[in-house]
Amino acid sequence: MSANVTIDRKLFREAMSRLGAAVNIITTEAAEGAVGFTASAVCSVTDDPPTLLVCMNRTSKLNASFKAAGILCVNVLSHEQEALSALFAGGDMPMASRFAQTGWSRLATGAPVLEAAAASFDCKIDQITEVGTHSVLFCAVVAIRLGSASTGLIYHGRAYHKITGADAA
Amino acid sequence: MSANVTIDRKLFREAMSRLGAAVNIITTEAAEGAVGFTASAVCSVTDDPPTLLVCMNRTSKLNASFKAAGILCVNVLSHEQEALSALFAGGDMPMASRFAQTGWSRLATGAPVLEAAAASFDCKIDQITEVGTHSVLFCAVVAIRLGSASTGLIYHGRAYHKITGADAA
Repeated sequence: MSANVTIDRKLFREAMSRLGAAVNIITTEAAEGAVGFTASAVCSVTDDPPTLLVCMNRTSKLNASFKAAGILCVNVLSHEQEALSALFAGGDMPMASRFAQTGWSRLATGAPVLEAAAASFDCKIDQITEVGTHSVLFCAVVAIRLGSASTGLIYHGRAYHKITGADAA
Repeated sequence: MSANVTIDRKLFREAMSRLGAAVNIITTEAAEGAVGFTASAVCSVTDDPPTLLVCMNRTSKLNASFKAAGILCVNVLSHEQEALSALFAGGDMPMASRFAQTGWSRLATGAPVLEAAAASFDCKIDQITEVGTHSVLFCAVVAIRLGSASTGLIYHGRAYHKITGADAA
């Protein structure tokens, strides 16, 4: 075994597409106003103290904004929010217009909280580990909002899937 | 806002149950033989270099075994492997008996590779960050095996859900 073995990136991405993950919109209140991006690389770390992590591309122009703000909100999407996921996944629409498409509020930190999210985790960025092309943001959860919908939107096999509760295995 | 605000752990767990996640069996070849545990806190970090992370409870008796081995394999379960998930989630059955229930092979590191997994990531543990009760294991992927099944098993709302490809949103 060698740690320097080269894994084909295409194969890595194909295999990773089989690791289903929840779809979230990560937001912050930056110097330039409210900003956000769609992410599935979010993971619970521990409930003592309540901590989660978010992986974020270092080449994103939002990377510096999130680090400067020092806060963020993880908004877990419900099964009905695929369009919102696409809206924050990229494109040319100004941030202000994206945020204008739906309702937002605030909790403790001032980061935008999606009112229709299944759950929102309002966080303080506690620690950052840089790994290759990505920043891993370890976040202390300081406030939580449970939405009225407890359903979920999953990205798996390069497609969206709805978890409505009716499809339990 | 205070970073010392106390978030109710029960509320945190309820909100986290709405963040759906793939179910995986994490294995290693430890001094005491093959060991493994079921985990949903697995996340892609970057494809350059191919890296993922696994969160693991520090109070688990397996924690020291994984760290000493320095290698692990993330086996992403297919929609048919709920029983295998339960088998490695805990209980009194000896590890050797658990591994005897299904077929395993090896790739580069020597960690057990589940033959019927949707995908397997054979890894070298590269870096460890301790956060509260948990260890975050950053893993360099050194070999990959794609299974014949590309379906998925998702844990959401404290229940299993099957992603078979027929339920795209």
